[in-house]
Parts: sequence; C-alpha cells; structure tokens
Amino acid sequence: MPEREVDVCIVGAGYAGLSAARALAAENRSVVVLEARERVGGRVWTGSLPDGTPLEFGGTWIGAEHYAIRGLAGELGVKTFPTYYEGESVISFGGHVRRYRGTVPPLSPIALGALGLAMARLERMALTVPLDAPWQARRAAKWDAISAGAWLTRRTNVPTDLARQLLQAAIRGLFNSDPSEVSLLHALYLMRSAGGLAKLLAIAGGYQELLVVGGAQSIANAIAAQLGAAVRLGAPVRTIEQDARGVRVTAQGELVRARRAIVAVPPALANAIHYEPALPADRALLHQRMPAGSILKTLVVYEEAFWRADGLCGASTAIDSPIEITLDCSPESGKPGVLAAFACGPHARALGALPADERRRCVLGTLGARFGPRAAQPAAYEEHDWAAEVWSRGCYMSHLPPGVLTQYGPMLREPVGLLHWAGTETATLSHGSIDGAVLSGRRAAHEVLALLG
Amino acid sequence: MPEREVDVCIVGAGYAGLSAARALAAENRSVVVLEARERVGGRVWTGSLPDGTPLEFGGTWIGAEHYAIRGLAGELGVKTFPTYYEGESVISFGGHVRRYRGTVPPLSPIALGALGLAMARLERMALTVPLDAPWQARRAAKWDAISAGAWLTRRTNVPTDLARQLLQAAIRGLFNSDPSEVSLLHALYLMRSAGGLAKLLAIAGGYQELLVVGGAQSIANAIAAQLGAAVRLGAPVRTIEQDARGVRVTAQGELVRARRAIVAVPPALANAIHYEPALPADRALLHQRMPAGSILKTLVVYEEAFWRADGLCGASTAIDSPIEITLDCSPESGKPGVLAAFACGPHARALGALPADERRRCVLGTLGARFGPRAAQPAAYEEHDWAAEVWSRGCYMSHLPPGVLTQYGPMLREPVGLLHWAGTETATLSHGSIDGAVLSGRRAAHEVLALLG
Repeated sequence: MPEREVDVCIVGAGYAGLSAARALAAENRSVVVLEARERVGGRVWTGSLPDGTPLEFGGTWIGAEHYAIRGLAGELGVKTFPTYYEGESVISFGGHVRRYRGTVPPLSPIALGALGLAMARLERMALTVPLDAPWQARRAAKWDAISAGAWLTRRTNVPTDLARQLLQAAIRGLFNSDPSEVSLLHALYLMRSAGGLAKLLAIAGGYQELLVVGGAQSIANAIAAQLGAAVRLGAPVRTIEQDARGVRVTAQGELVRARRAIVAVPPALANAIHYEPALPADRALLHQRMPAGSILKTLVVYEEAFWRADGLCGASTAIDSPIEITLDCSPESGKPGVLAAFACGPHARALGALPADERRRCVLGTLGARFGPRAAQPAAYEEHDWAAEVWSRGCYMSHLPPGVLTQYGPMLREPVGLLHWAGTETATLSHGSIDGAVLSGRRAAHEVLALLG
Repeated sequence: MPEREVDVCIVGAGYAGLSAARALAAENRSVVVLEARERVGGRVWTGSLPDGTPLEFGGTWIGAEHYAIRGLAGELGVKTFPTYYEGESVISFGGHVRRYRGTVPPLSPIALGALGLAMARLERMALTVPLDAPWQARRAAKWDAISAGAWLTRRTNVPTDLARQLLQAAIRGLFNSDPSEVSLLHALYLMRSAGGLAKLLAIAGGYQELLVVGGAQSIANAIAAQLGAAVRLGAPVRTIEQDARGVRVTAQGELVRARRAIVAVPPALANAIHYEPALPADRALLHQRMPAGSILKTLVVYEEAFWRADGLCGASTAIDSPIEITLDCSPESGKPGVLAAFACGPHARALGALPADERRRCVLGTLGARFGPRAAQPAAYEEHDWAAEVWSRGCYMSHLPPGVLTQYGPMLREPVGLLHWAGTETATLSHGSIDGAVLSGRRAAHEVLALLG
C-alpha cells in the first residue's frame, strides 16, 4: 500500500473533521481525511426521495446563534430557510391532544407554574457552569454526583407530575438517553453552552430555527468538494501509531504518514481504534465513559404540508406516546410536506424492537391523532435507527454519566502526544450540535497549526 | 493464513474463556482460545520475584464460598492456603492509626451505630434483588435511578460522616470507580451475588479468605496446559464474522472457523472488535455503557512478614489516605512478607499521575505509619496500573452507571446469533470475582453445547 505523506491526518469526515481539514488547508497545510463511510457528514445524513426532495435522517437544524455553521453555509453558497412556524403547536398528554399558539403550552396554572419555576431554576444553575471548564462550577461536585433524572424526580425541584414528565421528555429529547443516565452537570453544561434550555427547545430564535436548502449534509458535501482527493471515503481507520517521525495512520486501503493527527469521531468509535503506543489510562477510561444515545427518526412524507392549511405548524410534544416530538422539515416550498417524528432513548429502543409494520402503525396512528386523518396516509415513509449505524453507534451525541465530567472532563480536549481530539462532544459553545462540531474542528486545527510552527 | 476449523472459538483466555474451553473440551468439542496477550489469566496475573516468590498483580483472593474456582484448583492439583488473619487489623482516619481485633473497628458508638445500621439496610435491600434478573427487583427502577454515592450522601441513610466515608471507601474498593459513577442497583446486585456486603469485605469466611500457592494465575496456567495448542497466545482478535457456514474469527496471525463463538473479554474490549454483521444496536449501546474501574496495586516485599510478630495481620483500612486498603499476600511461609497496597478509582488516578519516586514515597510513608518504620524499608517494590493495560483497560470489572442495568441488563447474557457472552461481568453468583468468571464461562459453554446438539 503506498504511503501518503501530509502535514495532518484527520480521522472522520463529519462536520468536525471536515472543518478541521478546511481550516488547515486554508493555511496551506496538506491534509488527508479518512472516512469509514462512503459519504461525508457523519451524524448528518441527507437522503432523498426519487423526486430529489431531501430527507434529513440525521442532524437537521441550525440554530439562530449557530454562527459558525451559518457562516460556513454562506461562504459555500448553501442557502438556509426558516423552519415553518406559523399557526399552532400541539401538545399531547393524558390521552388528549391540545392545540396552542406560541411557546406556552395549555397546562393548568399549577403545572405551568411548576414547569416555569423548574426551568428558571435550571437556567440559573446553568449560568454558573463555566463554558470552558464545567467541572469548575462552584457546585460541580454536587451536580455531577446525581443524574438529571434524579434532580427532576425530587418534588422540591419539580412539584407536579405533568411538569416533571415534560422536563423528562425534554432531557430524553436532548440526550436520547434516559434522564437517569445523564449527569445533571452535563445537562446544565449543555444548557449553558446553548445559551439556555429554552433555546435548545425553541424553533424561532432557538436550535431549530433554520433548515438547509438541499439538506444539512449539503454544507459537508461542499467542503468535501473543495478538499477533493484529500477526502478518502470507505477508509475506516484501524490503527494510529506515533513514533519519532510523527504519526502513521492505517485505514482499510489507506496508509498515511503525518506530522499530527486529529481524531474527529464519537468517543465509542475512538475507543475501537488501536493506538500505538497505547492511549494513556485516563484517556482510555474516558472513552469507556461516553455512551451515545439512541434515536429512531421517522420521516413521513405527504403530497403537501397539509397541516399548515389547518393552522398547525407541525411541531408537537407528547408525554403519552413514544413519539415525543414531531417537527416540520418540509422543503421551503412545503411540497412535499415532511414531518419528522422522533422516538428518543428508551422509546427508540422499544419502538425499534417492534416489527416494522407494527412500528409504522404506531407512528402513523400517533400522527393521525395529532394532525388529523390525512397524517395516517403518507406518500412515503422512511425511518432510521442511529444506534444501528456502525460508524456512529448512537446519536445525537455522547452523554456523560454521573461522576464523569468532574473526574475526566479536563482531558476532553487534552492532546495525547501528536493526537488531537475534535467532535461535537469536545465543543464548548454549541456543545452537541452541528455548530459545535464545526467549532471543535477549528479549535483542533488551531491547536495543530500552533504546534506545526 | 491457514484456517483452523473447530466447534467453538473462544475470545479471551481469562478465567471465563478458559473455563468455557475446558467445559467444551470435556464434552469432546474442539476449541480454539484466542488470547491477545502472551499469557493466560486475563485480569489475574501472577508475576514473581527473582527467588520465585509469586507476586499477585491482579485478581488474588478466592472466597470461602467460591466453590467453582476452589473445585477447579482441587481438580488441577493447585493448592490454596488461608490468608494470614491472626492478630489485629489497622484502621486510619482523622490522621490517627488505630489497631483493633476482629471485624468491628474502633469507632465512636454513634459512628459504629450509623455504620451498622446503614450496612444492615444495604444487606436487606440487596436480599430483594433477584440474582438472575436484578432489573426485576421490586424497587429496581428507584435504585437504578441513583448512584451508590448518592444513596450514601443522604443523611437519612448514613447519618455520620465517618460511617459515610467508610462506606464510600468500601464502594470505591469494590468497583474501583467513584461511588457517584456506580448504580445503587448494581452495588446491591454485587452484594446479593456475594451473599452480602460483609462477605465482600471479609477475610475469614469472606471474599479474601484464600490465597493460591504459586499465585492465582496458576490455576489458569494449569487449564491452559491441558488445553495445549488450542490456546493461541499473542493473537488479538480483530474481526468476528457470522455467515451461513458459522463463525469466522480473525486474529493477528490466526484465522478460525467455528460453529459458534464465545466472547470472554471485558465489555470495553468487546466494543473494539469489528463484527460482521454489525452487532444489534442494543448490544453495541450496552458495550458503551460498561466502563471499567481504575486500580493501582502496589506489592511491597520484605524479608519477612514482620508485622505478624508485632501482632498485626497486615490488613488495614483508611479514609485519610489514597491507600485505602492493605492486605497481607505473603506466601504461606510468611517469607518473604508481601503487603498489597490498593489505591482505588480516583485515588488510583491521582496517585498514578505522580512521578514514580513521589508515588513510592507516598506508599511507603503510608505503610510506615500503619505498620511501623520497617515498613518503609522494603526489599522490593512493584506496582501495576490496570487501566494502563491495553488488554484489560481497567479492573476489577466493569460497573453499570445509573439507569443502565434496568434498561440493558436483560441482554447481558443474550446471545447474538452464533455469539455467546462470558466474563465475570455476566456472572450471577460471584459476580465480579474469579469464581464468577469461571461460572460465566461454564454457563456460556452449556448454552453452546445445548445448541450444537
């Protein structure tokens, strides 16, 4: 196998790896990006219908304040458009579907008060978590010792069941893992990193503000096109060696010599690479402690976004169904209409275990109840289980179980010799999002540039 | 590479893998055991001094009721002897070293009462955890939602700080991870599986009752000798394929065709094997959710076990030092004398980060304070960091963080097609111990035998 020689070898062509490569190439450094899949984008994957309509199977939305990815889209000539958000949203609990306008759901004053107070308290707590070093928050030890789920369970924190169930659904929706698995400190860190819990959950002004024309993978495709032959697809990395000469990365069909490497894959996959010399114990233990979530995303396609004519925006929240969230992700024209239905964490696993036709019945029945009988008659129906994807093994990101962030957090971005770490899991701002992936790739590139001299 | 053909291919020559192979060979099934290291025994590793004295770097003790491994030792002609337990033990807290006889440490009546009540409560809770299905305990959801650390923190559970610190040290000593990382349900399951917390901690009648003549690895060596060429050393497994013909296992230098395979390595290492077809999502997510602990074990050797003449048995417990536990693991003759000093979890990581000479000063200073000035003048000094071992990546075993056992527990022993799972992590009785590894290997072998027909 011929050995390529470059300045920097990048493992993974998700948004982190591609952004690192782009930043390095801009400084005239030679790069190779080794990607296991036959496509770029990582946990962002846009499929399509026969007519070309993009289908967002993975990361989809760009937040209002996600300036890195928005800027990148602009530079590359990829357009975005606001997520449809006119008319009413839907909330379902206790077996009843209710419509409402704006961001305040139609709950009893007591439930609404409990929800508002708990959210305000979480927001205040999150503000005390340092963005670069959450483990240094004054109450870090206390908050890392319990899960977000345990915090929500206490009646002194959330005094009504309905508010509790809604917040549990929010945590499940953000991490795709059971709230009992996620450190409270990590949940607060995610909130801090996003500018607040409300922004994480919001469409307008929040994390779901924009969709990408042609799909969220378009921006990755455009970066890859510029990088050209430097991006090697179908090349899963098996071994990373460091020696006196630098780094030697062996992938299926590729052998790369570089001065430094950037590992830009999720932690569970980084754990499956063979390192010579072996990773330091702490780094290996960290990789064992960042499990990913489980999500089953269903895209249901209709001739048009019929719910809009009925005064609905397509967004729904539920605590009485495994489909806890739906969102409109139709193309800008609204034709065809596309609803994304999310089953998160335990719900994804339960739904994923059903036979396909039963699962379909469940999803369409749910959509029918929320958006009327037309919802049960789709033109196309596609689903994707991210935990089954060998080269992601979970989505959206890894969470930190209790006790991990305070113990292992300081090494999240700590280089190991000539190896640097990227990926949205290492992001400070926009942690866990596409924007975070971009920022993490740039940060790793700048680390490398400073050291290459 | 020539392809070997056998009935069953076993991955890992620790006690689980070897016991599986032995059980299969006894039924005239052909086996190959592929082992990454140049030795068998896995997390049990006996080194030696120049004079041949065995040094137990890994799993060491056999419990009073560990009938599987005791029987195996008997069959193979390997002898055991009782851990020295005459005279007094030592406990250190608040900067003071205190001697005491028996199992009740010299605490204030209030601290002792708090400790006794908390332990009794834990024992009672553990008794309600079903051995084969801890996730079915009546209070499983509640106990899995919090960490052992969080339970210990509540003043209603443990009303005095001293009792709390001792119990935290016990959990750290059992799991080698911070108590905030370990699900309370997993801790209770470990207790249930051992016949109680007191047995886990005890020497006489408990988990530390017996030492093995020649070292704990001797039994593994004897099994391997009987298996002969079926055990392939230096053969780390990279890929496991399943197809219509059976299983194809590719290791460095070895290619094995088998009807079924038994994977008998720790979960974090099972996660680094490449599977074709890919593992089901749930199994992969389980592998991401079983991190191992961190232990730094120091063996300090003296001409003789001098502490015995001073009326001490060599056992010590401390909550004011990173060396929270010491135990006598001298050979039966007491010459030389060997003290094992354990730093567990966060203490292992902190101590491991020090320069070697500083670490040595710390360990010897501690031993000096507990066993007198002679303890600071050893004849030999050896240490081992198990998290740094590439083919273990942590010890003694993997723990389950909050929320995992109830969600993923049922698949711990669930075969995946032609793949079966062994390892002490899958054991019901003696979970986490050498005996558990043996039992798990036999259980997996019996699964396979029933299916081979």
